Amino acid sequence: MADVFDVIVIGAGPAGENVADRVTTGGLTVAIVEKELVGGECSYWACIPSKALLRPLDLAGEVRRVPGLEAGPVDPKAVLAWRDSMVSGYSDEGQVGWLDSVGATLVRGGGRLAGPRQVEVVGPDGSVRSLTARHAVVLATGSEAVVPPVPGLAEARPWTNRDATGVRAVPRRLVVIGGGVVACEMSQALHGLGARETTMVVRGGGLLERVEPYAGEMVAESLKEQGIEILLNESAERIERPEPGGEVTVHLSGGRTITADEILVATGRRAATRGLGLSSVGLEDGPVRVDDSMRATGVDGGWLYAVGDVNGITLLTHMGKYQARLCGDVIVARARGTADDLPSMRDRADGMGAPQVIFTDPQVCAVGLTEAQARADGFDVRTVEYDMGKVAGGYLLGDGYRGRAKAVVDERRRVLLGVTFVGPGAADLLHAATIAVTAGVTLDDLWHAVPSFPTVSEVWLRLLEEYGL
Amino acid sequence: MADVFDVIVIGAGPAGENVADRVTTGGLTVAIVEKELVGGECSYWACIPSKALLRPLDLAGEVRRVPGLEAGPVDPKAVLAWRDSMVSGYSDEGQVGWLDSVGATLVRGGGRLAGPRQVEVVGPDGSVRSLTARHAVVLATGSEAVVPPVPGLAEARPWTNRDATGVRAVPRRLVVIGGGVVACEMSQALHGLGARETTMVVRGGGLLERVEPYAGEMVAESLKEQGIEILLNESAERIERPEPGGEVTVHLSGGRTITADEILVATGRRAATRGLGLSSVGLEDGPVRVDDSMRATGVDGGWLYAVGDVNGITLLTHMGKYQARLCGDVIVARARGTADDLPSMRDRADGMGAPQVIFTDPQVCAVGLTEAQARADGFDVRTVEYDMGKVAGGYLLGDGYRGRAKAVVDERRRVLLGVTFVGPGAADLLHAATIAVTAGVTLDDLWHAVPSFPTVSEVWLRLLEEYGL
Repeated sequence: MADVFDVIVIGAGPAGENVADRVTTGGLTVAIVEKELVGGECSYWACIPSKALLRPLDLAGEVRRVPGLEAGPVDPKAVLAWRDSMVSGYSDEGQVGWLDSVGATLVRGGGRLAGPRQVEVVGPDGSVRSLTARHAVVLATGSEAVVPPVPGLAEARPWTNRDATGVRAVPRRLVVIGGGVVACEMSQALHGLGARETTMVVRGGGLLERVEPYAGEMVAESLKEQGIEILLNESAERIERPEPGGEVTVHLSGGRTITADEILVATGRRAATRGLGLSSVGLEDGPVRVDDSMRATGVDGGWLYAVGDVNGITLLTHMGKYQARLCGDVIVARARGTADDLPSMRDRADGMGAPQVIFTDPQVCAVGLTEAQARADGFDVRTVEYDMGKVAGGYLLGDGYRGRAKAVVDERRRVLLGVTFVGPGAADLLHAATIAVTAGVTLDDLWHAVPSFPTVSEVWLRLLEEYGL
Repeated sequence: MADVFDVIVIGAGPAGENVADRVTTGGLTVAIVEKELVGGECSYWACIPSKALLRPLDLAGEVRRVPGLEAGPVDPKAVLAWRDSMVSGYSDEGQVGWLDSVGATLVRGGGRLAGPRQVEVVGPDGSVRSLTARHAVVLATGSEAVVPPVPGLAEARPWTNRDATGVRAVPRRLVVIGGGVVACEMSQALHGLGARETTMVVRGGGLLERVEPYAGEMVAESLKEQGIEILLNESAERIERPEPGGEVTVHLSGGRTITADEILVATGRRAATRGLGLSSVGLEDGPVRVDDSMRATGVDGGWLYAVGDVNGITLLTHMGKYQARLCGDVIVARARGTADDLPSMRDRADGMGAPQVIFTDPQVCAVGLTEAQARADGFDVRTVEYDMGKVAGGYLLGDGYRGRAKAVVDERRRVLLGVTFVGPGAADLLHAATIAVTAGVTLDDLWHAVPSFPTVSEVWLRLLEEYGL
């Protein structure tokens, strides 16, 4: 028997939840389909647990820089327990209650498209339930870790972000394949919690290759100081793990061999579209292409949308939620026949370079374009940099505080194209830059936005002075 | 013998230094007159040492909230030593070197006006040196603590901010008169460093009366939890201190008597104009009134300027520096006969409500107008508030994290008139608000400035959602 809803959302992660919130607020009925935990990757296996693991280590770093305060070693058992509490003991009861409170209907199971406006849900017991959407189906299935085709790697059953953030017994010897955000954050977390021998195997010439090069260099320097070994321009050629869960041996392209207790793969993610039935509506497998209202392109009738990682635009929770809010509003407007092109209903932010904070020590905060991207895009670029350790707000945070800010200026319009801050505890410096970049605040207006003394934000003044204001 | 300079600056605090920087950059010669330490109140007796004293205590508070990390008690001796290093051992050698590096001529002694463009400097040895300015004299003498006319108070030789920030032996029992920024910050610092019995005597009905009322309430609650006694609607009527430096007894208006080892007065500051010779140029004593280019009003020839606390506009280091930058540029422009009315040469920021961070635990960060001020000014006001402890970026900072944000919206223009954040470590949240308020970024543009997850800045999203976006 078919169930009919105004909107069907497949995937109850942050993006899916935000669609449900906006469309129920708009008076539409919604079914939301989830095969795992309501709350999604972010809540249980990514952002939340990783930050819970990193926070005590970060704070221990801050304490080491401040005279007059001594902290004992971090207690891994207590940190893991805190992580468990931050992920609600891997129970989605609270989030299910929230879905109830907004009037969304939760359908447990794996959702797949079965033709126009049709969704089939394969329940935990194998039963299939057919759902029909009056107005829209929204794909919000997120992404999944990629395990590259290295001989022996899949057979070795390596850890991905899920195992790493959910760690129960910290391996003493750890090999991490990758040099991106997950690789850096989890190397730092696991090393700090007891993985005394941690080795990162990085294919490229540096860490964090999507942000300004100096950011990756500062993180690499810090990870090395913490005791992590980083092998650049190296890749795993062959993996051996004779006993499941036993010792693992990694043969590297340069000829070296590393033996460890565990291996973590963090080499990227792909849109979670397998088994999603895209072919039933004429789409190919892979990220679902959308227009700037999040409507899938190439689907007759315009009833299909995709938000969050599954559309491949920007794989960040907050951007998925942003897309979801505008998508939900657009769906409501189109269902009601009201204006569907208000300024709030179009994706402006992704194209400008989404903001991101990487929670290593130092934290890396970036928004907009890097210098290289801006030059490649043909802008008339000028950059300014400043040492955050030279502003009073920085050195008052502790002896040996190090940080660096960089701004990429569009000389023609005298606005910021991109800003990067690298420093301990820098996360909340970023939003000022996000506002300035997104709203196109001119340097001449920024000059009158006086940073309070003594805060780290005074680096804004120094950047503008360096520019010549 | 007269010495002639293009510009003479009286007072080498941050404001005076910034004038010197800008006018020498502009090619003018400058003499800067200072009777105490180059670097001024902020560097040795206010912002810098107070923040150095507070930082380890703040961090200890953060550690208490984070599972898996334990810190010992704060070591007062080590904290005082760190304070000493942050104030360069009360030596201005470094700052003198900086003045040299920009080509400014330092004249040690007390400066006073002696007629149009004339400054007399009474040197440490009592000799008088006459200086003449070709273009401008800039007053940058700052402010000084007021000791109210309470019987016995002056005779008791109470501490002011200077003694408190420069503390060598922490009194066990401390009475603090006042409930403003200095009173709150120094009560917390000294209590945390050993003043086990600290009592604040506050004339008004709450703390921090210039910011949103909830901010003062949250700080009061926290100070009380830390063990500080706060007496509201009370004032000191009479002070007794029979032995210099001995026990001090404070008789309160409500009839109670407090005995303590030391008394700190923090009831406000006044413009430091005594002995400045204002009458020689036809001005009355008190804050020197200026126009929006920092030129003193009512002085023939327009050669006199005043920046920083001495003009009474906003008694904050960063605002004095801001005024100094624009004042220096204006003086250069007028000396050269170039345009003196560029957008960067007028004070826009003070009138909108200067940004300020109060470094209590929780920190109070505010910019623009409070709700009460905005209503009194006749704006069409709507306010939204949100609990920062409910955003993931907040509760991931530690168990029991508490914070609250409030935005004051101008409904007519859909812009922010004022924003307040109260929370531990909130200082660098403020600059985003300072940019938004100063540049008049609309709520519709702020909607596309996506806060990164999980940072405390996500409270921006919540505020906009509360507003109805």
